[in-house]
Amino acid sequence: MQQRKLEVCITPALLHLYDISQSIVVVIDIFRATTSICYGIENGAEAIIPVATVEICESHRTTEGYLLAAERDGAVVTGFDFGNSPFSYSKDKVEGKTIVLTTTNGTYAIHQSLAAQKIVMGSFLNLTALSDWLQTQNQNVLLLCSGWKEKMNLEDTLFAGAIVHNIKEFGYQLDDASIASEDLYVLAKNDLSGYLKKTSHSERLKKLGIEADIEFCLNVDLTTAIPVLDGERLVKMKAFELKA
Amino acid sequence: MQQRKLEVCITPALLHLYDISQSIVVVIDIFRATTSICYGIENGAEAIIPVATVEICESHRTTEGYLLAAERDGAVVTGFDFGNSPFSYSKDKVEGKTIVLTTTNGTYAIHQSLAAQKIVMGSFLNLTALSDWLQTQNQNVLLLCSGWKEKMNLEDTLFAGAIVHNIKEFGYQLDDASIASEDLYVLAKNDLSGYLKKTSHSERLKKLGIEADIEFCLNVDLTTAIPVLDGERLVKMKAFELKA
Repeated sequence: MQQRKLEVCITPALLHLYDISQSIVVVIDIFRATTSICYGIENGAEAIIPVATVEICESHRTTEGYLLAAERDGAVVTGFDFGNSPFSYSKDKVEGKTIVLTTTNGTYAIHQSLAAQKIVMGSFLNLTALSDWLQTQNQNVLLLCSGWKEKMNLEDTLFAGAIVHNIKEFGYQLDDASIASEDLYVLAKNDLSGYLKKTSHSERLKKLGIEADIEFCLNVDLTTAIPVLDGERLVKMKAFELKA
Repeated sequence: MQQRKLEVCITPALLHLYDISQSIVVVIDIFRATTSICYGIENGAEAIIPVATVEICESHRTTEGYLLAAERDGAVVTGFDFGNSPFSYSKDKVEGKTIVLTTTNGTYAIHQSLAAQKIVMGSFLNLTALSDWLQTQNQNVLLLCSGWKEKMNLEDTLFAGAIVHNIKEFGYQLDDASIASEDLYVLAKNDLSGYLKKTSHSERLKKLGIEADIEFCLNVDLTTAIPVLDGERLVKMKAFELKA
């Protein structure tokens, strides 16, 4: 197997610097979009359709059986069923349903990545399943952190580092951002929650009263489904795709 | 003293996300532009004029007493006196001279920062002097890493972390990039050279045969001069400016 690239793009604002046409892009928005997507797909949602704007989300209101989810600046947009709290993506709420979702950072990152070979969603929830799958693929990997309003954030970087930590021994060429991310993850991994408490982002989320969400988003290996973009829909990766 | 911001901009490609009009910007290009600038100014260079292109640098050839320095992709551009090796900025070469300098990353970062309150140069050479000065200023601080072709690099991030480590106790509000940079610095500080050996950038520089330059650039507190942009010229900060 030739040496593949394993790179971390710290924010979508830097994505233009990477050639993703030959890469798997892992979109990461730990608090909370990709965590909720992983949880929703694991819990039997038929599909989650990420859309760029609240208006596009709204335009799906007349489609029967669709749930509409819209989040801006950490809060549910008025008039929508729910936002991106993972607790809204439980089995009783989403099984068999299609959800149209727009968020501040995560869905933006997905739309920026459309040139990629394949786009999958990563979160601590599916860390091991995703790592196991990535290393069987003979492909470059770009770990795309959604960040906060185009700046880096620690939680997404830590998760990128967790993937690097899990797969780097399988023949990848790392960039500096991968090395840094892994070192930060190793530093934080025994107490992710404690480590993240020192960030300003964490303060902001606390003000929003979503500490329970945050704790949930740091659960490791709660799920095994890998959400993959199929056309405009995020769906569960099929068993045959899971093979090398 | 009100709480000031202490932020790290990982690459100039993200600079548009920061309001620098009320900030001191510290430009960081450890390998090797800002290290050489610190060394040259310490060694009595009258001024160093950072210019954006090789052509502008060339246009100064007829100015008497000017030295022309041009580097691209790590090598001296053909026809120029020298590039950005710190060994070209020793006392015998630069005392009393004005140097016109263009480099791949560092001079680009300086030109991107012109809206700042003040622009100073940082390197491990003047780490303590710069830290001591910054914390006496009632100003926001943006640590601007030059990176490598707009991507992050570890050496600039580590130095940003060193500044954070030195001044964070003096009443600053840190962003996530500052927190991450400091943690990486603390991890690496007892063996900067060993830590940086694992980066791809280090491999690239090794191929250029500039290992001696690299080791030199990791000298801590060899100098005390703070190069500051005055109009288009980098000059030594005067004693009266050094006060709070």
